[in-house]
Amino acid sequence: MQINALVAHDAAQPLSSGHIALRAVQPQDVKIEILYCGVCHSDLHMARNEWAVSRYPLVPGHEIVGRVTETGADVSSFKTGDIVGVGVMVDSCRECHFCQQQEEQYCEAGFTATYNGIDKYTGDSTWGGYAQHVVVDQHFVVSVPETLPLAGVAPLLCAGVTVWSPLRHFNVQAGDKVGVVGLGGLGHMAVKLASALGAEVTLFTTSPEKGADARRLGATRVVVSRDAAQMAACQTSLDFIIDCVAAPHDLDPYLATLKTNGRLVLVGIPDRPHQSPNVTPMVFRRLSISGSSIGSIQETQEMLDFCGKHNITADIELIAGEKIEQAFARMLRGDIKYRFVIDMQATRW
Amino acid sequence: MQINALVAHDAAQPLSSGHIALRAVQPQDVKIEILYCGVCHSDLHMARNEWAVSRYPLVPGHEIVGRVTETGADVSSFKTGDIVGVGVMVDSCRECHFCQQQEEQYCEAGFTATYNGIDKYTGDSTWGGYAQHVVVDQHFVVSVPETLPLAGVAPLLCAGVTVWSPLRHFNVQAGDKVGVVGLGGLGHMAVKLASALGAEVTLFTTSPEKGADARRLGATRVVVSRDAAQMAACQTSLDFIIDCVAAPHDLDPYLATLKTNGRLVLVGIPDRPHQSPNVTPMVFRRLSISGSSIGSIQETQEMLDFCGKHNITADIELIAGEKIEQAFARMLRGDIKYRFVIDMQATRW
Ligand SMILES: [Zn+2]
Ligand SMILES: [Zn+2]
Ligand SMILES: [Zn+2]
Ligand SMILES: [Zn+2]
Repeated sequence: MQINALVAHDAAQPLSSGHIALRAVQPQDVKIEILYCGVCHSDLHMARNEWAVSRYPLVPGHEIVGRVTETGADVSSFKTGDIVGVGVMVDSCRECHFCQQQEEQYCEAGFTATYNGIDKYTGDSTWGGYAQHVVVDQHFVVSVPETLPLAGVAPLLCAGVTVWSPLRHFNVQAGDKVGVVGLGGLGHMAVKLASALGAEVTLFTTSPEKGADARRLGATRVVVSRDAAQMAACQTSLDFIIDCVAAPHDLDPYLATLKTNGRLVLVGIPDRPHQSPNVTPMVFRRLSISGSSIGSIQETQEMLDFCGKHNITADIELIAGEKIEQAFARMLRGDIKYRFVIDMQATRW
Repeated sequence: MQINALVAHDAAQPLSSGHIALRAVQPQDVKIEILYCGVCHSDLHMARNEWAVSRYPLVPGHEIVGRVTETGADVSSFKTGDIVGVGVMVDSCRECHFCQQQEEQYCEAGFTATYNGIDKYTGDSTWGGYAQHVVVDQHFVVSVPETLPLAGVAPLLCAGVTVWSPLRHFNVQAGDKVGVVGLGGLGHMAVKLASALGAEVTLFTTSPEKGADARRLGATRVVVSRDAAQMAACQTSLDFIIDCVAAPHDLDPYLATLKTNGRLVLVGIPDRPHQSPNVTPMVFRRLSISGSSIGSIQETQEMLDFCGKHNITADIELIAGEKIEQAFARMLRGDIKYRFVIDMQATRW
């Protein structure tokens, strides 16, 4: 089945409209007409081969919202017409300890990525969401609350669950004091989700002008991280920090804001190491630094249900597919509040 | 009350026999005739002012085992003749969140250190265990199982509880795969305690000749950490690591040995930063790096009871007090298996 998609042909060329062949619908597969796809920083890194793992042609996109158009014979959870989502994973081994306990993101065999992965059935690449359709095993498809504005749901599938998973896994509770470092695609979702969970949110930013926006999104305190006096004023005040900044930075000023037993969670991977964190406060206040990678399918569904109940979506700017390179350029400048989303129906192929 | 003690008069001079004045026994105080005192690396650092916080004169020693010789009017838990222990703390605020939940080591006001602290009653320094007697509030005194050889109990009061606390706080279970980095005073206790808890212990060492000893102490696997092939062979095999090496080192080879959700606990504070840990495996396997500082009084008692039941003490070399400088010199060379303990009754003052 040939469909239209935005294709990267190599690291140097812009994405362009092209054709890809989807696999035939298997008994457990769901075929989805894509309505919206969020534009994640990973998409840009992968299109440009910045992680040196890209295989071309490549179709990015793992923040997918669409409508079911066909279901395989064994599909029971979805029917034609349902509004559904697909995130970062489209398959995994299904057998390892982590798959068995519904944590496919930590599959010991490695999950199958939504794009640039290896499709179990075809042996070819998996193709992402910058496209008209996608075919995905039902286990990796989630239900989208139809009351939500669907374009804003798309970024929940990667950015949203990436911050939701550590909030839940590390048991952040109502009343907890939560710090969020960086107000970008991930950070703005962390502020929304943590505050909706009842946490008291402090947003750390290098950009004082983001303060008003952070408060609108749910933060009760905004701290300019380059202002030593502001940082000193929030020493040992936080239970938990989610650090959404991938660029190398000094973690010590954030560790200083954690209470005893506090935890700093890194969800981004820097291209050069962060400055080495100071062990002294870690020992004397039993602090932890943890990593966290996306989230499970179960957590994704839980988050979408939560967002449906609390009327939460991402703040987005909708674009047609042919504007993707302009969007990439603006992302590189940090000129986006807070996620571009491609409107497939507005896209001329 | 004047007593004999080994006194540091400044950073440059050797310890020498001298006199100190203990506080009068208060209603909640226990006076203890010291039988044994372990020689902790902190004692050497503090005697030499290597942390730049020493106040002189200074009497080191916070691994104390002795016999109760007097009790204040309000003391109900101890009576004359009891064999008791005193560790790193002799007081704390008693009122903060952490004191209230029996975690005095994280007291928000800072606990009172057994030596070089400020005695609440006298305003003078607290005096450590390289001495004939000590007077301590009953809350900071623990009971010692009298079936144990008492000289080997002394190091449990600091080295023992420092590794026991993270094993318990982070819920290490029978059957867990536990790594211990470094076979020194702390490491040898970590091997003994973790294996007695039913964990399967891997000892990491730079010294292949320590292998036989590590197995005798309870390790089932010994890995020479400088041997890349040996390190590679234990990739993603461990649930938990307790890293007892204070010298700056690369944590990445140890992170590589952790399974998903694994944790590396640092109990030592390096004098220069460790190499910055690689965030990539931390994110992709949800690893944590945590610090941990000594242990609470409750944990100390729990550990001593456990040691009584399992017949665990430290491996020690007993010395008379006048040999302390030779002991310090040998500690600096790493020439000790695994703790010096001063025999007070063999000491000529
Ligand atoms: Zn993404
Ligand atoms: Zn798996
Ligand atoms: Zn010590
Ligand atoms: Zn306290």
